Amino acid sequence: MATFSDKPVSEQVEELSRGVEAMYTREELAQRLTRAAAEGRQLRVKLGLDPTAPDIHLGHTVVLQKMRQFQDLGHKAVLIIGDYTARVGDPSGANKTRPILSPEQIAANAQTYIDQAGKILDLSPEKLEVRSNSEWLEKLTFMEVLQMAARKTVAQMIQRDSFKQRLAQNQDVFLHEFLYPIMQGYDSVMIHADVELGGSDQTFNNLVGRDLQKAYNQPPQIVVIMPILVGLDGEQKMSKSKGNYIGVTESPKEMFGKVMSIPDGLMTNYFTLLTDLPPAEIAALCDAATTHPRQAKEILGKRIVAQFHSQADADEAAAEFARVFSQHAVPADMPDVKATAETMNIVDLVLKAGFADSKNAARRLVEQNAVSLDEKKITDPKTCIPLHAGQVLRVGKLKFGRIVL
Amino acid sequence: MATFSDKPVSEQVEELSRGVEAMYTREELAQRLTRAAAEGRQLRVKLGLDPTAPDIHLGHTVVLQKMRQFQDLGHKAVLIIGDYTARVGDPSGANKTRPILSPEQIAANAQTYIDQAGKILDLSPEKLEVRSNSEWLEKLTFMEVLQMAARKTVAQMIQRDSFKQRLAQNQDVFLHEFLYPIMQGYDSVMIHADVELGGSDQTFNNLVGRDLQKAYNQPPQIVVIMPILVGLDGEQKMSKSKGNYIGVTESPKEMFGKVMSIPDGLMTNYFTLLTDLPPAEIAALCDAATTHPRQAKEILGKRIVAQFHSQADADEAAAEFARVFSQHAVPADMPDVKATAETMNIVDLVLKAGFADSKNAARRLVEQNAVSLDEKKITDPKTCIPLHAGQVLRVGKLKFGRIVL
Repeated sequence: MATFSDKPVSEQVEELSRGVEAMYTREELAQRLTRAAAEGRQLRVKLGLDPTAPDIHLGHTVVLQKMRQFQDLGHKAVLIIGDYTARVGDPSGANKTRPILSPEQIAANAQTYIDQAGKILDLSPEKLEVRSNSEWLEKLTFMEVLQMAARKTVAQMIQRDSFKQRLAQNQDVFLHEFLYPIMQGYDSVMIHADVELGGSDQTFNNLVGRDLQKAYNQPPQIVVIMPILVGLDGEQKMSKSKGNYIGVTESPKEMFGKVMSIPDGLMTNYFTLLTDLPPAEIAALCDAATTHPRQAKEILGKRIVAQFHSQADADEAAAEFARVFSQHAVPADMPDVKATAETMNIVDLVLKAGFADSKNAARRLVEQNAVSLDEKKITDPKTCIPLHAGQVLRVGKLKFGRIVL
Repeated sequence: MATFSDKPVSEQVEELSRGVEAMYTREELAQRLTRAAAEGRQLRVKLGLDPTAPDIHLGHTVVLQKMRQFQDLGHKAVLIIGDYTARVGDPSGANKTRPILSPEQIAANAQTYIDQAGKILDLSPEKLEVRSNSEWLEKLTFMEVLQMAARKTVAQMIQRDSFKQRLAQNQDVFLHEFLYPIMQGYDSVMIHADVELGGSDQTFNNLVGRDLQKAYNQPPQIVVIMPILVGLDGEQKMSKSKGNYIGVTESPKEMFGKVMSIPDGLMTNYFTLLTDLPPAEIAALCDAATTHPRQAKEILGKRIVAQFHSQADADEAAAEFARVFSQHAVPADMPDVKATAETMNIVDLVLKAGFADSKNAARRLVEQNAVSLDEKKITDPKTCIPLHAGQVLRVGKLKFGRIVL
């Protein structure tokens, strides 16, 4: 049996509203929590996961943090693996966004996701249920599909942000994509969801779930929409393709270093969405009058590393970072750079070390004064240097390599 | 075994192209006819029927005439009753164009349709197959629906005439309506259609059938599109709601009278689409230099009445028409008009006779000199007349009633 929090419902609602972008509706959440407590029943909190992209970064963890709050209050996370959708793929061959996956790939991807999400979620059976939507979508009749589809108009579908944008740009939207929101909504019906979590790009789909539950005479789920996490650049949405992300499987050193690199203005947002520190404490940490931004970021970085690795890893990463960057020392541990000749051009060396993706990029790094050998800057891309084993090549603040002949 | 026409294929194609608005494609039709003849196989010629509107008028018979041509060449008509669609209705309650029908109503409507269509079609079992699409749509899995839907883009659907118009006028188009063309296309797959017939409003749907057959590795059906028949007013599409139609169950007298009323300019069109007279003969009939329009219309009217009733009925209707209108005589047979008083106002009398739908309409008829009693015009709506049994009330050219006290 699940143990429920004995906090007053108003306090629970306050906590669950933290960082939320929108809630449909807060009043219903309060009522649902009250009723569930009276009945000794866990709320069923739904989150869909995309089995085509199992690797998760901090952007994905925002909803997972919210899910963990529900779990900590005694409720059950219900993760839905969208395996049925993944099997559709794109028969027309024109839409490359949805590859067809085999059942084995889907299962492997789902496991990868859950392993990674497990750094945040409580995976104990009384707090977690994992379902695949093929379970019920396979049995759905065409008539049921038609009847659900008849509840939405084409105009409503076109208003959905992602469709609207693609249509405005004359990009193809395939007809079956219009059925995806209905599939997701039907998932809510089939698992009797009390709450559904999602990022703001899921608002439309999650509200379809509310609508379909009403049609099936169920109390409509409460929809909790979390904001999209801004990436390390402080401007764009965190995403793998933009390179402005922190993956949950990255090393403590990488994670910590990346957190230290964020613009100061992002700190409140990251503290709110990625940690469980109380709002008052966050306010104090993000006020430059009381805390130096470097110190605040160190606390943020350690919290994040500790969550995905351990407190010891967090402390070590912080100490290492301080040693290298605050004291301008070189790290204790660094990769080897195997020289291809005894004398090499500096641009070729940077490229060989893997610190740049192309010769042009390596040349630019040299020209921008980012490259040094044994802490001596080299700024002319034409420079050729006699190399010795043990020399330290450094590019920017973060990349170090030890020369091996 | 069906007997095939021994006409050369080129001649058959010529005949089947008569009156056609578009064909996808004529070359494929020639190939398909050649191959079917070589294999001794009947072509399967599909026509969907709407079980929500079973009463048919001459507008509907245009495709039926085309179907009969295929039958006469030895091929099989496959009528598809769209019973699955009729069961969907409109769960949202907003779209009143598609009432939900019970299976009994659908069966009754289909029978009504076939009874009426039987005036044109050959109903012998070797020339006719009647199927209900619930037979296969009931078994369709959601995955198959998604895969078919993935072959069409939203932009393509929106381009469909009827959707485009409704969306432009901000009328609701429900999402399930986007699935109807796919259902109709799948019907073609399931019955292995060689040809599909339709009015020009069915072009989009019928071409979806071609596309889906290719996806299911079938030779794509040839699509034969017939023009929409212009109504008796010579301007708008023939339709029940506009009152400009001839229903196939109307009496010989009504049918003949209505044909005689059409504008001269419609004759070529009606002869071409509603009779099987050879084009050269039609040209001669519709040339005022060789034939008086009244004479041509009489031939057209007799042909049409003979098709839906009998040659004797046609001759009688023509003779009656000639007697009344050419010789200004009253018909031998007319309905009784039961007077409600011995002296009645003329407007009330016209209304009581059922020759006008409202008092205002009756008043207008009087004012327009359309009303007479015993062939004496009455033009003042205020006139009150002492009535005697046996007097003849006449409104316009066509309506007669005998006064009964």
